[in-house]
Amino acid sequence: MYGDIRLYAGTACPELAQDIASYLNLPLCGRDVIEFPNENLFVKLHGSVRGQDCYVIQTTSAPVHRNLMELLILLQTLRLDSAARITAVVPYLCYARSDKKDQPRVPITARLVADMIEIAGADRYITMDLHAGQIQGFFSIPGDVLTAFHMLTDYFKTILNRLHSPVVVTADLGFAKKARNYAAKLQLPLAFIEKRRLANNAKAEALTLIGDVYDRDVILVDDEIDTGGSIAQAVNLVKENGARNIYISFVHAVFSRDAAQRLAALPVTQFVTTNTIPIPHEKAALFGERLKVLSIAPLLGEVIHRANEGRSVGEMFNE
Amino acid sequence: MYGDIRLYAGTACPELAQDIASYLNLPLCGRDVIEFPNENLFVKLHGSVRGQDCYVIQTTSAPVHRNLMELLILLQTLRLDSAARITAVVPYLCYARSDKKDQPRVPITARLVADMIEIAGADRYITMDLHAGQIQGFFSIPGDVLTAFHMLTDYFKTILNRLHSPVVVTADLGFAKKARNYAAKLQLPLAFIEKRRLANNAKAEALTLIGDVYDRDVILVDDEIDTGGSIAQAVNLVKENGARNIYISFVHAVFSRDAAQRLAALPVTQFVTTNTIPIPHEKAALFGERLKVLSIAPLLGEVIHRANEGRSVGEMFNE
Amino acid sequence: MYGDIRLYAGTACPELAQDIASYLNLPLCGRDVIEFPNENLFVKLHGSVRGQDCYVIQTTSAPVHRNLMELLILLQTLRLDSAARITAVVPYLCYARSDKKDQPRVPITARLVADMIEIAGADRYITMDLHAGQIQGFFSIPGDVLTAFHMLTDYFKTILNRLHSPVVVTADLGFAKKARNYAAKLQLPLAFIEKRRLANNAKAEALTLIGDVYDRDVILVDDEIDTGGSIAQAVNLVKENGARNIYISFVHAVFSRDAAQRLAALPVTQFVTTNTIPIPHEKAALFGERLKVLSIAPLLGEVIHRANEGRSVGEMFNE
Amino acid sequence: MYGDIRLYAGTACPELAQDIASYLNLPLCGRDVIEFPNENLFVKLHGSVRGQDCYVIQTTSAPVHRNLMELLILLQTLRLDSAARITAVVPYLCYARSDKKDQPRVPITARLVADMIEIAGADRYITMDLHAGQIQGFFSIPGDVLTAFHMLTDYFKTILNRLHSPVVVTADLGFAKKARNYAAKLQLPLAFIEKRRLANNAKAEALTLIGDVYDRDVILVDDEIDTGGSIAQAVNLVKENGARNIYISFVHAVFSRDAAQRLAALPVTQFVTTNTIPIPHEKAALFGERLKVLSIAPLLGEVIHRANEGRSVGEMFNE
Amino acid sequence: MYGDIRLYAGTACPELAQDIASYLNLPLCGRDVIEFPNENLFVKLHGSVRGQDCYVIQTTSAPVHRNLMELLILLQTLRLDSAARITAVVPYLCYARSDKKDQPRVPITARLVADMIEIAGADRYITMDLHAGQIQGFFSIPGDVLTAFHMLTDYFKTILNRLHSPVVVTADLGFAKKARNYAAKLQLPLAFIEKRRLANNAKAEALTLIGDVYDRDVILVDDEIDTGGSIAQAVNLVKENGARNIYISFVHAVFSRDAAQRLAALPVTQFVTTNTIPIPHEKAALFGERLKVLSIAPLLGEVIHRANEGRSVGEMFNE
Amino acid sequence: MYGDIRLYAGTACPELAQDIASYLNLPLCGRDVIEFPNENLFVKLHGSVRGQDCYVIQTTSAPVHRNLMELLILLQTLRLDSAARITAVVPYLCYARSDKKDQPRVPITARLVADMIEIAGADRYITMDLHAGQIQGFFSIPGDVLTAFHMLTDYFKTILNRLHSPVVVTADLGFAKKARNYAAKLQLPLAFIEKRRLANNAKAEALTLIGDVYDRDVILVDDEIDTGGSIAQAVNLVKENGARNIYISFVHAVFSRDAAQRLAALPVTQFVTTNTIPIPHEKAALFGERLKVLSIAPLLGEVIHRANEGRSVGEMFNE
Repeated sequence: MYGDIRLYAGTACPELAQDIASYLNLPLCGRDVIEFPNENLFVKLHGSVRGQDCYVIQTTSAPVHRNLMELLILLQTLRLDSAARITAVVPYLCYARSDKKDQPRVPITARLVADMIEIAGADRYITMDLHAGQIQGFFSIPGDVLTAFHMLTDYFKTILNRLHSPVVVTADLGFAKKARNYAAKLQLPLAFIEKRRLANNAKAEALTLIGDVYDRDVILVDDEIDTGGSIAQAVNLVKENGARNIYISFVHAVFSRDAAQRLAALPVTQFVTTNTIPIPHEKAALFGERLKVLSIAPLLGEVIHRANEGRSVGEMFNE
Repeated sequence: MYGDIRLYAGTACPELAQDIASYLNLPLCGRDVIEFPNENLFVKLHGSVRGQDCYVIQTTSAPVHRNLMELLILLQTLRLDSAARITAVVPYLCYARSDKKDQPRVPITARLVADMIEIAGADRYITMDLHAGQIQGFFSIPGDVLTAFHMLTDYFKTILNRLHSPVVVTADLGFAKKARNYAAKLQLPLAFIEKRRLANNAKAEALTLIGDVYDRDVILVDDEIDTGGSIAQAVNLVKENGARNIYISFVHAVFSRDAAQRLAALPVTQFVTTNTIPIPHEKAALFGERLKVLSIAPLLGEVIHRANEGRSVGEMFNE
Repeated sequence: MYGDIRLYAGTACPELAQDIASYLNLPLCGRDVIEFPNENLFVKLHGSVRGQDCYVIQTTSAPVHRNLMELLILLQTLRLDSAARITAVVPYLCYARSDKKDQPRVPITARLVADMIEIAGADRYITMDLHAGQIQGFFSIPGDVLTAFHMLTDYFKTILNRLHSPVVVTADLGFAKKARNYAAKLQLPLAFIEKRRLANNAKAEALTLIGDVYDRDVILVDDEIDTGGSIAQAVNLVKENGARNIYISFVHAVFSRDAAQRLAALPVTQFVTTNTIPIPHEKAALFGERLKVLSIAPLLGEVIHRANEGRSVGEMFNE
Repeated sequence: MYGDIRLYAGTACPELAQDIASYLNLPLCGRDVIEFPNENLFVKLHGSVRGQDCYVIQTTSAPVHRNLMELLILLQTLRLDSAARITAVVPYLCYARSDKKDQPRVPITARLVADMIEIAGADRYITMDLHAGQIQGFFSIPGDVLTAFHMLTDYFKTILNRLHSPVVVTADLGFAKKARNYAAKLQLPLAFIEKRRLANNAKAEALTLIGDVYDRDVILVDDEIDTGGSIAQAVNLVKENGARNIYISFVHAVFSRDAAQRLAALPVTQFVTTNTIPIPHEKAALFGERLKVLSIAPLLGEVIHRANEGRSVGEMFNE
Repeated sequence: MYGDIRLYAGTACPELAQDIASYLNLPLCGRDVIEFPNENLFVKLHGSVRGQDCYVIQTTSAPVHRNLMELLILLQTLRLDSAARITAVVPYLCYARSDKKDQPRVPITARLVADMIEIAGADRYITMDLHAGQIQGFFSIPGDVLTAFHMLTDYFKTILNRLHSPVVVTADLGFAKKARNYAAKLQLPLAFIEKRRLANNAKAEALTLIGDVYDRDVILVDDEIDTGGSIAQAVNLVKENGARNIYISFVHAVFSRDAAQRLAALPVTQFVTTNTIPIPHEKAALFGERLKVLSIAPLLGEVIHRANEGRSVGEMFNE
Repeated sequence: MYGDIRLYAGTACPELAQDIASYLNLPLCGRDVIEFPNENLFVKLHGSVRGQDCYVIQTTSAPVHRNLMELLILLQTLRLDSAARITAVVPYLCYARSDKKDQPRVPITARLVADMIEIAGADRYITMDLHAGQIQGFFSIPGDVLTAFHMLTDYFKTILNRLHSPVVVTADLGFAKKARNYAAKLQLPLAFIEKRRLANNAKAEALTLIGDVYDRDVILVDDEIDTGGSIAQAVNLVKENGARNIYISFVHAVFSRDAAQRLAALPVTQFVTTNTIPIPHEKAALFGERLKVLSIAPLLGEVIHRANEGRSVGEMFNE
């Protein structure tokens, strides 16, 4: 109904794109992405996409702005070449934390990014684990917002019998509801870390553990790890409160600056994450066996397959 | 710069509208709002609004759809009469809880409502304490999303010395971060109530208290109270856990069905709320002195005043 | 070309929706429409509509605003679930009489309703006998505006030989041209009732019959009957002018307030109408055999069938 | 508030534009309108319009398409030169009779024209006596739709005492309601001419007079006269039915082809119209004293004046 | 995928439309295009286009505004009749020379025309040799901008061996880059004619030949010939500089006013052009054998064929 | 009329922004621009801009994508804070060379950039010397496209008496018309360098000089210098053809990679350019006295001043 699937990969996550293509038993379509000396990007498709059902796979991790612009240019190129339908497949959506004005005179950059993706030519979008689910409402176009929740909890189920009185903990109160979902799915208790600025000192923060971790294995859950600063604080706090082994579960491995070094140095048994953002080999090597990266390629591949055929995505999750 | 202020009130919150007008020392502008026998609404402005800076004050509590349509018709009427600028002042925005697709094949009605307000003709909007701050990003037009947080915490500060080891508790994990803000502002500890569906029974729920309320006065915080069911459960749970006096703080008094009766029967010392939604006198009477309604009229009035003059709203809150 | 037909019914006209489905030999698709205690509506589709050709059947009679909002939410839900094409099937379009500014400072609510239907997600619309044909131009999207004219005149043709010197009369000068079409199709003479406000009394109206009804059977024609007040005046006037039996033909049975009682009490031989708006059984019972309701289900069903297959609708009427 | 008034005239109605300018005591702003040999039009403004309140006076009578394009180019030129507000003043709006699909597979060109005016850059529009008031709803932008009704009826009031048992007649059933307004304002009776295609001959038409004109002076009312064919038929019919003197009142003197010759030859006492369309002197000369052209310049001038100052237009008519 | 091809022709280039239809082995679809006495155009399609892939073939040469409006009305009619996809096929796009503001307070009419085509309902466009390629960027919709460059240079290749030391010359410096492409494709040298206004006389122009034409055959290249004034100057200048035979190559034969007479009188061996604009037989006759018109019908036909099937257009040119 | 001027500077050209502010005798408004560790940018305005006339000064040279995104975020922030009018001041607009599809399946990125600037919130734009003037038509919003042509030619006039038989030369045929304008203004002859790919070798290019430079001083003109490769070729070619001293005039000093080194090594007497892009001191130092940078600050300052007051910009240039 929508023509044949045409998969295009930007330059941000080539391995993931190839894995999706392999899942679908399709090639990635040829295209040139050239960066001129003046940094301007240029795209040329090797073949026509008239009347085809096109998917642009491009995550928007660092270099963020270059990757975003590359995505937009690819979308426009497909549109101007009269593609029948264009889907932006963005496993990690940049600027998702700039999603509201919680103080005056600041932007809502996530809305700007959504507008840019639409105006460039996307008819639909596919992404994963938005920082806030409400960001779906920033788009006028329909989309599939997928989650690694099932993958991650399924993984922990396989090792749950090895854990000692495990408890789910979150260090981000904005993630409290999702942390509850992790706890409920794994049938574990829940605890929170509250962070609070001290009244007389803008820089100082006080951390409080609410709930019980003593003599328990801890599964720290969050949606992304950026510099790893918060997670390091959280690890220390649960350790101080008597926690035993610590596992960290998160979807997006942003790993800014020296996050990988900092995290690898923590007393953490395992880091469980996904490949929405490619982790460079030298960073991954710092963790050795302790880093477990679950692949989202089968998930994205299956969703693309169903979207092309006009079949339900929801029923993949019994919804 | 934007012409003179013209205040229009829908029929949903006439007292609040009058209070805002009094704050601004301006009259409410004359308009007819007629409901024809076929339920269709009709509006006629008594005077011209060409080139004026118009504000439509209309909350969207029950009757929700009639009130929403009345708002939209007022906006369009002002637009067609060539108003210079039109601001929708909607203290309580309906459908704010339908703000994301947390399951497949459901709407994001809050985005639809935002789209409707824009297409009807609003250039700006003013509202209060959205269920999720991200709903700001559903609008393409700028707006002022105000909060009763300062009012409510200021009130509790005045009675804080009368409370016994008070603790802030929230029964909604989606409100956890905001509850932390209440606790931080009041310099109190924080606790949570986790609600979880039992695995083998879709209807049954288990409530767990995380944190400590024993022998403490409790301030239960939330953004709105609808039927009062959750809040009743929460009151019972903290009582079972040894809480002393209970105070409830919330912004929007939705009070659906027999909520007022149910709430009034609870062992709660005080209910502190605002007039974003008018509470009928017969409902208010059930609470007697225990109901404290803080007026948002000065806040909205001042924001309208500053918006008209092109002055900062943020500096009202030292931001 | 547009995927399979998916029929969705709102809650406003379930019998009509079922009759359309039966005509098409298709089921109505499962969906939940839930009204929460706070009156907010919620929709969940039972199955996916990706890539399907969807039709939402929902008339917008009373409760008008709830029915309209339900329509809009259904449209948005289908859009967000990536339906291939969405058609709003609205047999009776509310607010159609608010279609122009015939005085200053009033709305054009019919345009607002059209805008709302478009922004919610409709790609096309189907409706019947708009108060003014120009309302088609309020929509940017294409639509099929059908008419019961053929059905109604065909019916009268079957009884015409039983009538005594029949004459077509209209009590609404805005309907004069359409009344002429009725008269021409039935090859009958035409007369008018002119209503005029008296100069010295805003409330008093003078009715004048222009044309001849003496000793004739009268077919009073109009597009809708609301409270029945005008039609009662018209019946009295033609009776005073010597009319014999009176038949009333109209498309939309709005029947506000006590219209059914009032109409049933009139000296009218037969009321001929359609089911664009469901007539409650208790109201219909007041008329006994005198009420003739022609079903539009085959007409709407056939139009949906042809729209899905990309075939002409016009040729159904030899146009 | 909107900057100073800047009046621009297209080439379609220079005298009217000058009269409006004189009313306002303002000059017409200098602009070149050049037609290149390839028929393409070119516009250059003599002075800047940054931040000014601009009005383009251009009627869209013949040459219709050239005049329309000139209007659009003027609007865009003002927009690109950063005018603060742009109003299209179009006394006669072309294509207003193509306002609905009364048969399948035809355009609604009036909507197209409205869209074109908006996309060219108009923020507002002013026009007169639209064929159907609903065309206002084709515009998304606000506008002032004025009427010559007051002017025309005021004129007839001045000569009413000279008329013999006058009656208002309309030959267009689509104009029936407006004809009633003329009759009511003048406190005269009303009659209709019904035109009907004969069943067995597509070309032949039968005209019927409904109401009474015998031994009466007749005021034939319509919104425009195009070729004059219908009006000639109407004059003959009322004459055959015993009418005495005939007056014709209409707003827009389209006068296509040899309409002027045809009309001048009719046994009509007076033709009363306006200058929404300029009547060439050689055509006007055919009528001698029998043609009465009322000027709309003071009306348009006053509306522009009030629009610029942000004052009510409605109160000009005690509305 | 897009339904069947439906070809519609406006009245501007009926022979070209028929030739395209013949190439595709398809009929032109029936439609009435009527001009009413008031110049308003009316369109009625003979058959339904629901779900079909429609192409409107209409060039926008003189009468420019009528032809443009006819195009727009046809597009809207197809859209309102629910065509699946609509492509405007405009071999010569009017107003393409009004493509930038090279002085203040002038329009960019080409952008206005693009906007009008989009708002009327085109989903795509096909055109040829735009005055500036950048005009593609004025459209939001995708399009195929074709060129007669291949046709024209292929033709000259067939006669190149008959020419004496040929050189490519252009009289329009804005065409310099394209002239280079002609020269490069034909492997010939290049020369320019520079036109410059004299400083002390706004009307006087000085022409300078830059490059060498002495004793050479000259191929003068340009995109269109309007009045022929510039080309006549150029012919004189190269003659004065010792050129031998002169050939003129251009895409669009606008031929305004007496251009044909003027051109036919020039000492030019051959005029090579295309049928993007129909040349009336009486004008063509003035040139006798010296006028060579290459047909674009196979090119447009093949592009329509490929667009309908979703195949590459670029590969027609080995791109 | 538009409120007070508020000048905001991005981080791309702080000195230019400061010079504009100095010209206007206004401060740059305070704002934080923060780059988070994950590269996401964040903006916070120090003061409110409600109802003010705001200008964002940000050139889009390297780092191109970061600078572009910073511009967009600043625009959105101003819009969400209810600025009255927002103007993007972008002295050098990135991606201007991607302005048409001169081959299939490539983007028109300049249109995408224009769309992004509009959707972010700009009401107007100011830029300088676009690669093609037609890019103005890519914007729907009005703008001022300024030129350094007057500045540059005025400069050359001051040294013209020192030059020996000077000639204007351009190495870019797309710049031929503008080069003619330089030559005409300076009353000098004109010559061209034609670059052509050799038929049998895609990489090899042949350069040809068309016109005369022997024993003349040469002014090489272009709009920008990127890597300097073309300009180096041009310098060599004119030298080989006997040119004496060489001057280079260009607007935008892109200076990618080692352009500065390469250019500084050329036998060029003077490089005359502007500060639309800041030239780092270490690069400028390579040229010593040979680099002449004319400041556009007074030009932009004056345009902002006039735009705010609603006065003509064109008359600055006697247009």
